[in-house]
Amino acid sequence: MTAAVTRREHDLLGDRDVPADAYWGVHTLRATENFPITGTPISTYPHLIDALAAVKEAAALANEELGLLDPRKAAAIVAACREIRAGKLHDQFVVDVVQGGAGTSTNMNANEVVANRALELLGHRKGQYELLHPNEDVNLGQSTNDVYPTAVKISAVFAVHALLRAMSVLQDSFARKAAEFHDVLKMGRTQLQDAVPMTLGQEFSAYAVMIDEDRSRLGEAVELIHEINLGATAIGTGLNAPAGYAEAARRHLSEITGLPLVTAANLVEATQDCGAFVQMSGVLKRIAVKLSKSCNDLRLLSSGPRAGLGEINLPPVQAGSSIMPGKVNPVIPEVVNQVAFEVIGNDVTITMAAEAGQLQLNAFEPIILHSLSESLTHLRSACLTLAERCVDGITANTEALRAGVENSIGLVTALNPYIGYTAATEIAKEALATGRGVAELVLEKGLLPADRLGELLRPEVVAGTGTPTG
Amino acid sequence: MTAAVTRREHDLLGDRDVPADAYWGVHTLRATENFPITGTPISTYPHLIDALAAVKEAAALANEELGLLDPRKAAAIVAACREIRAGKLHDQFVVDVVQGGAGTSTNMNANEVVANRALELLGHRKGQYELLHPNEDVNLGQSTNDVYPTAVKISAVFAVHALLRAMSVLQDSFARKAAEFHDVLKMGRTQLQDAVPMTLGQEFSAYAVMIDEDRSRLGEAVELIHEINLGATAIGTGLNAPAGYAEAARRHLSEITGLPLVTAANLVEATQDCGAFVQMSGVLKRIAVKLSKSCNDLRLLSSGPRAGLGEINLPPVQAGSSIMPGKVNPVIPEVVNQVAFEVIGNDVTITMAAEAGQLQLNAFEPIILHSLSESLTHLRSACLTLAERCVDGITANTEALRAGVENSIGLVTALNPYIGYTAATEIAKEALATGRGVAELVLEKGLLPADRLGELLRPEVVAGTGTPTG
Amino acid sequence: MTAAVTRREHDLLGDRDVPADAYWGVHTLRATENFPITGTPISTYPHLIDALAAVKEAAALANEELGLLDPRKAAAIVAACREIRAGKLHDQFVVDVVQGGAGTSTNMNANEVVANRALELLGHRKGQYELLHPNEDVNLGQSTNDVYPTAVKISAVFAVHALLRAMSVLQDSFARKAAEFHDVLKMGRTQLQDAVPMTLGQEFSAYAVMIDEDRSRLGEAVELIHEINLGATAIGTGLNAPAGYAEAARRHLSEITGLPLVTAANLVEATQDCGAFVQMSGVLKRIAVKLSKSCNDLRLLSSGPRAGLGEINLPPVQAGSSIMPGKVNPVIPEVVNQVAFEVIGNDVTITMAAEAGQLQLNAFEPIILHSLSESLTHLRSACLTLAERCVDGITANTEALRAGVENSIGLVTALNPYIGYTAATEIAKEALATGRGVAELVLEKGLLPADRLGELLRPEVVAGTGTPTG
Amino acid sequence: MTAAVTRREHDLLGDRDVPADAYWGVHTLRATENFPITGTPISTYPHLIDALAAVKEAAALANEELGLLDPRKAAAIVAACREIRAGKLHDQFVVDVVQGGAGTSTNMNANEVVANRALELLGHRKGQYELLHPNEDVNLGQSTNDVYPTAVKISAVFAVHALLRAMSVLQDSFARKAAEFHDVLKMGRTQLQDAVPMTLGQEFSAYAVMIDEDRSRLGEAVELIHEINLGATAIGTGLNAPAGYAEAARRHLSEITGLPLVTAANLVEATQDCGAFVQMSGVLKRIAVKLSKSCNDLRLLSSGPRAGLGEINLPPVQAGSSIMPGKVNPVIPEVVNQVAFEVIGNDVTITMAAEAGQLQLNAFEPIILHSLSESLTHLRSACLTLAERCVDGITANTEALRAGVENSIGLVTALNPYIGYTAATEIAKEALATGRGVAELVLEKGLLPADRLGELLRPEVVAGTGTPTG
Repeated sequence: MTAAVTRREHDLLGDRDVPADAYWGVHTLRATENFPITGTPISTYPHLIDALAAVKEAAALANEELGLLDPRKAAAIVAACREIRAGKLHDQFVVDVVQGGAGTSTNMNANEVVANRALELLGHRKGQYELLHPNEDVNLGQSTNDVYPTAVKISAVFAVHALLRAMSVLQDSFARKAAEFHDVLKMGRTQLQDAVPMTLGQEFSAYAVMIDEDRSRLGEAVELIHEINLGATAIGTGLNAPAGYAEAARRHLSEITGLPLVTAANLVEATQDCGAFVQMSGVLKRIAVKLSKSCNDLRLLSSGPRAGLGEINLPPVQAGSSIMPGKVNPVIPEVVNQVAFEVIGNDVTITMAAEAGQLQLNAFEPIILHSLSESLTHLRSACLTLAERCVDGITANTEALRAGVENSIGLVTALNPYIGYTAATEIAKEALATGRGVAELVLEKGLLPADRLGELLRPEVVAGTGTPTG
Repeated sequence: MTAAVTRREHDLLGDRDVPADAYWGVHTLRATENFPITGTPISTYPHLIDALAAVKEAAALANEELGLLDPRKAAAIVAACREIRAGKLHDQFVVDVVQGGAGTSTNMNANEVVANRALELLGHRKGQYELLHPNEDVNLGQSTNDVYPTAVKISAVFAVHALLRAMSVLQDSFARKAAEFHDVLKMGRTQLQDAVPMTLGQEFSAYAVMIDEDRSRLGEAVELIHEINLGATAIGTGLNAPAGYAEAARRHLSEITGLPLVTAANLVEATQDCGAFVQMSGVLKRIAVKLSKSCNDLRLLSSGPRAGLGEINLPPVQAGSSIMPGKVNPVIPEVVNQVAFEVIGNDVTITMAAEAGQLQLNAFEPIILHSLSESLTHLRSACLTLAERCVDGITANTEALRAGVENSIGLVTALNPYIGYTAATEIAKEALATGRGVAELVLEKGLLPADRLGELLRPEVVAGTGTPTG
Repeated sequence: MTAAVTRREHDLLGDRDVPADAYWGVHTLRATENFPITGTPISTYPHLIDALAAVKEAAALANEELGLLDPRKAAAIVAACREIRAGKLHDQFVVDVVQGGAGTSTNMNANEVVANRALELLGHRKGQYELLHPNEDVNLGQSTNDVYPTAVKISAVFAVHALLRAMSVLQDSFARKAAEFHDVLKMGRTQLQDAVPMTLGQEFSAYAVMIDEDRSRLGEAVELIHEINLGATAIGTGLNAPAGYAEAARRHLSEITGLPLVTAANLVEATQDCGAFVQMSGVLKRIAVKLSKSCNDLRLLSSGPRAGLGEINLPPVQAGSSIMPGKVNPVIPEVVNQVAFEVIGNDVTITMAAEAGQLQLNAFEPIILHSLSESLTHLRSACLTLAERCVDGITANTEALRAGVENSIGLVTALNPYIGYTAATEIAKEALATGRGVAELVLEKGLLPADRLGELLRPEVVAGTGTPTG
Repeated sequence: MTAAVTRREHDLLGDRDVPADAYWGVHTLRATENFPITGTPISTYPHLIDALAAVKEAAALANEELGLLDPRKAAAIVAACREIRAGKLHDQFVVDVVQGGAGTSTNMNANEVVANRALELLGHRKGQYELLHPNEDVNLGQSTNDVYPTAVKISAVFAVHALLRAMSVLQDSFARKAAEFHDVLKMGRTQLQDAVPMTLGQEFSAYAVMIDEDRSRLGEAVELIHEINLGATAIGTGLNAPAGYAEAARRHLSEITGLPLVTAANLVEATQDCGAFVQMSGVLKRIAVKLSKSCNDLRLLSSGPRAGLGEINLPPVQAGSSIMPGKVNPVIPEVVNQVAFEVIGNDVTITMAAEAGQLQLNAFEPIILHSLSESLTHLRSACLTLAERCVDGITANTEALRAGVENSIGLVTALNPYIGYTAATEIAKEALATGRGVAELVLEKGLLPADRLGELLRPEVVAGTGTPTG
């Protein structure tokens, strides 16, 4: 006699056999059949699984505290949730990340896994739901419509923290280069045309400052997703959740996660609103835009080696071409650009999903979760890769850069206050037409004495890093 | 003898004749020829023209204060700027809103108009630039690269304030309806399926709260565009702007505009960065998403008059059809939806423009200005129109709504705590299949006594607006 | 003595040890280290791996034919490629789908796997590149810049064919329902307001026709990606590819794939241009828009069961709620909506990647491949799921629908030609205000005789499916 | 005694006074009050006004032909329409381009203007609708739902033709430059890194070919919008349009416009479907992407004048800076970039509007019209401006370009077939590290004899424009 390979479960639609050793049950089974869309199970986002377990644990503790849940059941549910948060059973979270039903299948999957593990911990067999039920016990006082958004938010908070750390790493890399290149003079450019002198340190400092500002914005946006709607149940009226439940559940959830969560003041609004996700995605798009711009610059400044700008050298990290020997390409900035394009596309997806919400619920949060998680994790990888495999190894072609400044027409701008815009324009025109230098033309025309001119045109002075002595 | 109809001006490219009565000059002339793109002149955005004049006035005052500009010239420039800010000469701002050159043509247009008006005020003729020069005097210590972004930001701040006021109007309209509909019971819906009861007041309250939150987000985002880079000049190194200029100009500009402006800490970064515009547009997109969702709901709830949900009635504002007599359509929500789609598209435009910045400058700020101004002003019109021509006149079909609740299967959810999810599911299935009511089925099966059941299923109780007495 | 667990390989940057049993080599190793972005290896897209093998096989045959490659080497390369196309060694394609370098790492990965398998087939050991070299033999006459785009296109063609088949399945499902509902009268709606009668068959027929048109557009767009640039090598000048190579390689590739491939007339243009991908993605977006609209309709028409439109019933496929017993949600249309939002977001990503190409190459084709593959495969799953788990099981509430028509005010439109728009408008207003029927009001006012009126207002006649007898 | 300044009109909502001299009436009046959104009247798009008049004329002729409209009325309507198509009365089309109501207000505006002008032509006064009625006569057999989409399509066809002509102009400009630069050798670049030689003629030829392909795609897309739904009336069932009307109206409309219009096979589908607009916008996006990429290249290749690539010179068209004397910026490509960003954003707007259609109609066609018209007309201006003010005046720095080739490391790629990828890689590495030339290193190592090497490395040979003699 052998052990049964399946067990029979029942739901609204009838009976189905699930594998005997599966912690998930009939609702999960139907969901996997209904949504064969991306092949990506929700376990791909471990933060989400941990957040679901944290919510289930908090709800069980609140229910126990309010006398609604038998303490033995509560203890078993809590123990099961802690196992999950310790990284166990993640492989039982099998429904597709992109799913219909506003996350119901994800919530059902969690209810079933927690219930079956709790049953085992109580000495029962999986599937003995009459002893501890996925919906009546694990999901007690809850609805997908408060559980899922709450878990998505907690998951996103964890992912944002990881991104913030990666951004700090990248910011530090840029800042170190800014210090290293503090005295490297170069021509600044506007609209790709030679403008006026600056230092390479100023250029890299700008990249560091950009990231610093973006970190501030991200820090502000993440505050907004600490507001949860747990206790709202189906539509925000709190049906089936007794007085005190929302507050108790929030308190336990804050303790479990270590996050300063707050319950939304208007739960009807909070249950249907995806504004905080749109805002978060908008900030990620902002970060992507800046990162992409910085990478465009790095690729441009390192163009060459001989027929390009050749101002800086990116560290080679792999052979660049299967046909062109010795070619090295800016592959790290290029991959960051692509992540940026992905994040910007994801923002449109999130925007459309948020706009499509109807009446008391947004049914499209699963694609919001998916797109937001992708943006967060890919941006994190991109920042770390850019810092460690590119920025940290950048070197400058200092001599060529200085020569470019000395040879430039843009120096004439510094003479505006002394000879006027109109005269300076004539000098610039002649320099361009003849290939001659600004200084010799000014001298030839007797516009300024030589020593005064030399001082005014000293690159450090023009770049604003040295003071004219006169 | 007649007055000359043109005057001759000169620039880098040579001589050109401009109309004698034009306050703009050769640079503006060339720009109008170079950019025949949209046919929309910059004067379409009066806030921008006022902001440009404010910047020019502040710069003149700062230059005078620092002894760089002759007081008589300064006084004339200031007087000309004040005329512009009083609404005069706006028709002289003729360059296309979409233009190459990072806003140079807009700045040149401003320099020329201010110079020529100042010349007149000093008793001279237009074009006598040897007496007061557009670039050497009006633009003294400035570059397009600090003037234009600063003016765009001030212009946007004014437009945001106008939008915030319109949002308040709309929020108040929704809030008044929420109060009016406080006791109107109705079925809540999730995923367009009947869920559990609520009140129409709760539904409208959610719309008011959404707008309130969006106003908070917009208020935060507008803070970021109070940070300006005036004094950065060409690339942020402050070339040609003497010590003290940036601070003096900022101080005067704050006084003129009444805005608490701050100078960016890192002017190189501030000159190339469009992050604050991306953030602002992202918040406008968030607002658009919510407005559009609310309008989708209004259209859905007012569908009918006979074959729709028919829960509310929008006030008729025009005949709806050229062929179907008596048809009235939800035209106001529909136009708001379309503005929302426009704002979301504009966000993509702004994102791409911001990403395309290179090195020390973003050359694409004109399209950012244009798209942002459109989003801000159209959203404002949409909010006011929605409030005044739609929300304020909405009425409810109270009796039909209450009947829907009493007839609903969703009431059974309230019995979960008493008969369990599994038994409740069976009741729901049978009610659906047979068309019978939840209460009679529960009684028939003897699951609860009649008086207890009656109390538990009382709509006010289920909606959470009344308390069960038992 | 044990076998070595690693072998040493060499590239531009120095030596590295790779696992002895890996078919990939040093270039692949570095790429996996450089691009830890998505965790999704290129083997996720089997069509791409097959296409790469097809290109390598075609190139080897062309090189052999032109006397450039030793026949024994060619035979081994061909044999290795056929193994790959038979589904073997796919697990050796390990580089991340999102990568810098314009696909070089993907091409290098393919070169190494093919070379090492070919070496084995020739009786040698992996890594003995002096006998058969990844770059000098497998990649002979090729560049990533022609191999990768060609493989991406072939891969996309295969995925498009699969999508077209799925769309046909869905079209047939809608068409069958159109036939089934041929005689089911209902109110048509414009702007969610009751308009004039039609049949449910007409409504479903429109969905079928939409898909049919979209299939035509997709069929046209896929033609464009049969144009390849194989033979272009690095930048389209064909350097290192001898006369006759491009044509021979194309011929072999057409035979291997069974696709009518053509070589682009201008290879410089073809090597830098991503227009065909943008066009393809644009058509996928069009398909997504229509699918989403159709699913919105299905969700709306099936809203209820009691407080909604309740015109049709979607087959229940899973329990809808973890809290609301008996609730069944339109989860299949909802998941299709979400796929549509993803496709629309992907289109923005692809657009930005295409726009970012510079000079002779677009370095961002990997994200184009990734986004396009996602859109194609997810749309395919969505169509099949929608057909099989939703549309095929839809039923109509025929009686309620007919009653809605008979009760409607919109019927009055049919009287325009007989009583005029103005009079009809008055009838409609009165019907709406009083709740009375159109017919009784027309009779009461004596506008038309009863028998004539009855015939004109017969629903079949108004819906255009029956002819008035008079 | 003075003439009345207003006349009284009546509609569903009651009486309103309109200016006595206005050709528009009460419906238009209400629409202008309801939609104070953009301030842009529909007359901004003259093609649309002409198309509306063409549809009204065709309908009148069809109605007369079928005996439904009195010939005298028909003649007056036709005459009024012809006046409008001749450019008269355009100022009477005053409703906002962005409007709710699926275009009803636009159609009503047209009906009223045509009716009042026709009344005048018949010797009556404006407003005497009992003699000739906007809805009952001018709109006879029509609905906004077939008139508006038909007019939008015809309008778009005209705008596409204008764009196609402008694209041809630009293509010719690029092609002329390709011929002019046929022999100008330069380094090709991939990923901004030096690759292998090519000619500047090949580079410009690619731009010409891109446009040529885009013209083909646009030509295909415009075919799709020749399919109209005139005769569909309200929802596609043809209610109130007698047998033969659709065909007669189409025939007259084809004659009037000169366009080979076809009536959609399934009018229910055609009335709700916006797929052809999405497709059209997608192709415009494709064009925008390519134009933007080409302009990015032009800006990059002309960077300098001294610290940039400096390969080509764009003609100066205006002074580039208000502060930097003599600076000339690539303002024309920059404005084209911005138009491209706008078109890409508009595509998102159009996509969202198309997706939001519900059941038998898409209520959001006005924003589709607006966005599509903007994209079409701005792209046209951009193409002409780019051709005439930039491309036509481009010159090449031939000597510097050739020197870049001779100095390049990329030349070594040409030696792959002779010395192998591995040896060539070592040469490239050493050249880069030492600054020495490829040729001298190859000779020093005795890898090839000097005469053979000289021939293989001859730039024309490597660029593929000359044949090796050996």
